[in-house]
Amino acid sequence: MKTWDLALQLDRRSHLSLAQQLTRAITDAIRDGRLQPGAAVPSSRQLAQSLGLHRNTVVAAFDDLRLQGWVETVKGSHTRVTRALPEASFAPERRGAAVGFDLEPWPSSAPTFEAVSPRVLDFTGGLPDARLFDARALARAYRRALRRAPGRLLGFGSPAGDPVLRERLAQMLASRRGLAVTADDLIITRGSQLALHLLALAMVRRGDTVAVESPGYPSAREAFTLPGAKLLPIPVDAEGLEVDVLARKLERGSIRAAYVTPHQQDPTTVMLSARRRLSLLELARRHRFAIIEADYDYEFQFDTAPVLPMASADPHGVVVYVGTLSKALAPGLRMGFLVAPPPLRRAVLAVRGQVDRQGDLVLERAVAELLEDGEVLRHSLKARREFHARRDLLARLLAEHLGEVLDFEVPRGGLALWAKVARGVDVERWARQALEKGVRFFTGRPYSPSGARLPYLRLGFGHLDARELEEAVRRMKAALPR
Amino acid sequence: MKTWDLALQLDRRSHLSLAQQLTRAITDAIRDGRLQPGAAVPSSRQLAQSLGLHRNTVVAAFDDLRLQGWVETVKGSHTRVTRALPEASFAPERRGAAVGFDLEPWPSSAPTFEAVSPRVLDFTGGLPDARLFDARALARAYRRALRRAPGRLLGFGSPAGDPVLRERLAQMLASRRGLAVTADDLIITRGSQLALHLLALAMVRRGDTVAVESPGYPSAREAFTLPGAKLLPIPVDAEGLEVDVLARKLERGSIRAAYVTPHQQDPTTVMLSARRRLSLLELARRHRFAIIEADYDYEFQFDTAPVLPMASADPHGVVVYVGTLSKALAPGLRMGFLVAPPPLRRAVLAVRGQVDRQGDLVLERAVAELLEDGEVLRHSLKARREFHARRDLLARLLAEHLGEVLDFEVPRGGLALWAKVARGVDVERWARQALEKGVRFFTGRPYSPSGARLPYLRLGFGHLDARELEEAVRRMKAALPR
Repeated sequence: MKTWDLALQLDRRSHLSLAQQLTRAITDAIRDGRLQPGAAVPSSRQLAQSLGLHRNTVVAAFDDLRLQGWVETVKGSHTRVTRALPEASFAPERRGAAVGFDLEPWPSSAPTFEAVSPRVLDFTGGLPDARLFDARALARAYRRALRRAPGRLLGFGSPAGDPVLRERLAQMLASRRGLAVTADDLIITRGSQLALHLLALAMVRRGDTVAVESPGYPSAREAFTLPGAKLLPIPVDAEGLEVDVLARKLERGSIRAAYVTPHQQDPTTVMLSARRRLSLLELARRHRFAIIEADYDYEFQFDTAPVLPMASADPHGVVVYVGTLSKALAPGLRMGFLVAPPPLRRAVLAVRGQVDRQGDLVLERAVAELLEDGEVLRHSLKARREFHARRDLLARLLAEHLGEVLDFEVPRGGLALWAKVARGVDVERWARQALEKGVRFFTGRPYSPSGARLPYLRLGFGHLDARELEEAVRRMKAALPR
Repeated sequence: MKTWDLALQLDRRSHLSLAQQLTRAITDAIRDGRLQPGAAVPSSRQLAQSLGLHRNTVVAAFDDLRLQGWVETVKGSHTRVTRALPEASFAPERRGAAVGFDLEPWPSSAPTFEAVSPRVLDFTGGLPDARLFDARALARAYRRALRRAPGRLLGFGSPAGDPVLRERLAQMLASRRGLAVTADDLIITRGSQLALHLLALAMVRRGDTVAVESPGYPSAREAFTLPGAKLLPIPVDAEGLEVDVLARKLERGSIRAAYVTPHQQDPTTVMLSARRRLSLLELARRHRFAIIEADYDYEFQFDTAPVLPMASADPHGVVVYVGTLSKALAPGLRMGFLVAPPPLRRAVLAVRGQVDRQGDLVLERAVAELLEDGEVLRHSLKARREFHARRDLLARLLAEHLGEVLDFEVPRGGLALWAKVARGVDVERWARQALEKGVRFFTGRPYSPSGARLPYLRLGFGHLDARELEEAVRRMKAALPR
């Protein structure tokens, strides 16, 4: 019985049953040509004996092999390796290339989220500090959420998100941001990035034009180009988006949407002026495009009250509002939301079915619990005091140690600072050398829609404490090109 | 001072400060024309007196209004409503239409996830029963996860997912499914739908062709058409995908990928035969396309051992493996994964940055805890026994009460049954009448790539208990068109 002299190494501690191991050994032998199509199969008794297995194990394995089509029974009782198995499979090549199919490179220009060593002090992103967040309060909120409505939260629910969280969030947006919304107007998303992704898929058709800020947030540009939008970069000055430039462009062609960050322009941190807010709303009404208002740092204003969103004064239904709770909680809790008129909301929900079906309802209910018991507000207030102090410290450190090469306005709010780099300093080289010295920051370049070099850098300070900020600025200074 | 006779309703219990409320009232008055551009602003003392406010409140409001550009200071001290505010804004129309911008309808043909009344017994989907899952074990796992590594789980992490979960899952896939994978080969996604979405975005370029099963899973088709794939429907028979048909099509043009469900074809539940598995692998190697193997019901085989995936015998690197843990846990816990060769994995991670940045690391770590302490396995075994009983009950009920109109094979595994409807019964009408009687099921139609009527229906039974199954079949019978 030479052909059945399988190199069978049965492992009685394996999670695969002995029958499964035998099945696997026989199919491997067929695949690599040791067993040929049409080869006769010995009786289960013979095989059990030669392999030292219980006969039932062999019978079970052959039942599976027969069902899967590896062996076939002919003339009533005689069994053989299926004759019709394809020949070509019997000359296996060594797995050389890691991939056996063709793939085009992913055409991304957004800054990557490459992990850096934990020893690198990272100014990229404008993140809050997860260390300030009370993880025990979250654990308790999870437990309460799971105790109260386990079946509903663990099953399929609305792709718009947990109704309880939408209710609480709508109250919060109405009372604190002047938005006339109810739970039905809201869709909870996993971070504002998913909100942008869903909006872009729902709104943009190939060849549509979307106006974006220049410089502006790279991941928003990526969200719109993914479904085929052409970008129309509009410059930003000290009053925010240059709406007059957009108005002139609109004389020559229509746009589907304009993406703006009126409260705190990303990356420059300037505020869109009242004059331009009104002009932009009027342009949108007249030309029937959507204003996508991303309001990502509402909670963290240090010097003045937060400015109410454009969405709070939108009589014509042109504003789509995108926000996040991740900043008021912790960056890893991907928790964003959007407010959109009904037809767009329906389209977003239909798209979501093809993306991730629904959010994490347990987390959503837990966050609703945290909103309900005031934990989100308490945490935001505590965090705001801390971020205020960090902003002041960073501004002081930069003025003191890098005042000759950096020129900046202290941002009124938000978790990042935008600084102009003096002529004669190669900011790209500085960033590279800084990374070697253990500090990372983005230059202006990723914020430029054309990928142009901009003599700026952006420092997200929210997640770095005083000691880290001091060390980070020290390393920046040490890395300065001479 | 007539112009400053604002209809100011200050609410001292509001979350908005009095200064914010005053700011809002003034900007509203400017917006609707009660205050004109250029109008003089009274002194803060006058205004405080006339409105009954503290002078500091008025000063704070005007500081904000000046900063936002609603008012401006001229000739040193005199303040007026900003003259340059655009005229057009002062003729507000009533908000008539719900939306003020243009939007094209979302072109979806997938069955919607419309919520039905909780009294409707729902056969759609092939879902497990969230009621069987121990929510307390999950709450404990959350707490343990948050206790052990709060900072890391609440911050930004790898878009590939929690390393601890990937480690555990890789061990599980190696020991139970014969996949030679390590943690680095895996990407955790929010359900297998997000895995398909990310794969489609990473692989498909507009105009590429993707082969799909016909009938087949509608959401997979949608995932591929979203980035612009042309679909190539390949028929399915009792041996699964008709690979010979695909081979003939490949003589006339190339494809980017083939989406298959070899273990348990969705919706027909047939298994792809050994002969066709080998042929398909060989075709993929020769024509350099990817086989996307979705293996969604691996845990729930009732009559035989699970068939090891095609990905477990893939010497040429052509198989991309997609699986889910949601079925072994609870449908609301969106927890899928994919295994792909390195270049595709890198592209998927780059895409993910534009979609949702990362998964829910706290949930991922909690599930790692459940895998570690055997809870996932215990639950799967318990659930499998229950689903086995439900399958047998449903098959018996259908044979008994609807045997004259339904013809079906009892599925070896999985959580759904596919049945042929007798000639003369209008299945679409039956489905409509059934919904009126309080039972919902999908007909064959949504599974057809062309949207053709198919004389079939699909009954997902996993989440319905014995009493519910009996009642559901009773209602189906009552709804049968005569």
